Amino acid sequence: MQIIKKRRSIRRYSDKPVLKEDIQAIIEAGIWAPSGLNNQPWRFKIVANKKQKDGLAQFTKYGHIIKSAPISVCIFLDKSVMYNRDKDIMAIGACIQNMLLQAYELNIGTCWLGEILNQREAVEKYLELNTDYELMAVITFGYSDKMDGQGSRKKIESFIIK
Amino acid sequence: MQIIKKRRSIRRYSDKPVLKEDIQAIIEAGIWAPSGLNNQPWRFKIVANKKQKDGLAQFTKYGHIIKSAPISVCIFLDKSVMYNRDKDIMAIGACIQNMLLQAYELNIGTCWLGEILNQREAVEKYLELNTDYELMAVITFGYSDKMDGQGSRKKIESFIIK
Repeated sequence: MQIIKKRRSIRRYSDKPVLKEDIQAIIEAGIWAPSGLNNQPWRFKIVANKKQKDGLAQFTKYGHIIKSAPISVCIFLDKSVMYNRDKDIMAIGACIQNMLLQAYELNIGTCWLGEILNQREAVEKYLELNTDYELMAVITFGYSDKMDGQGSRKKIESFIIK
Repeated sequence: MQIIKKRRSIRRYSDKPVLKEDIQAIIEAGIWAPSGLNNQPWRFKIVANKKQKDGLAQFTKYGHIIKSAPISVCIFLDKSVMYNRDKDIMAIGACIQNMLLQAYELNIGTCWLGEILNQREAVEKYLELNTDYELMAVITFGYSDKMDGQGSRKKIESFIIK
């Protein structure tokens, strides 16, 4: 609960690099999310070199976050294994949440970028991927001295239907 | 990581009741999921009495799981606050994953039921809800002596795009 509540978006990162084995552990956490029929519809593209980061950054108005982060991971839905779009997209959300929590546990800051989906097809074309892969999100990873803080949520009562 | 990897679906429960405050804590974990523009699109309907459980159970071939569980929670997307369907559904997935992890930490078994979405409109009608609420999943909660075990995933390499 502490990890869940304290995790928050980090949009500016220090120069400290992120270890490949940490990214591996974060993706490992992601793939242990549940999915309908255990179809595991998530796919990941790691973007770590400057050229690719700059390329990716051009497709979102939050490109400065991608440029600031040592590593970004693009998350895709593999439509070739899809069986129910809504359920598969929920599974991707569960996968991303695992990644954010695992990163936080490793003291790595993250930002879940969604605005880039407005240019999803252009990103997919830029990355020259299998056309079965549909972009769902980009997650940035890096270190920050501003990991603490607190998000805000409405009161729990406002979400519970009587 | 341990919680993420050990959590698995529990489909049969003991008679031991689930405390209301534990369900409260589980929903609290859910609402701390991230959402686009922090729109917090999740809504919850707690189903705990026998009549409502039996009523809900009739809409899925996995009704026996709902009947066996002391408590189920129906998760809805509030379409009145929706801003991007895919992103909102991912947020719901993140919310559900938080709930599953928090439940596991409380030693409460869960099962994420999706097949019931095939009769989504009938469920919404049965529960007599605001028509803005679209059913996304039903999660069952209860105790079991079979919390241990291990799911299976393909190798991490098979998900990473070169």
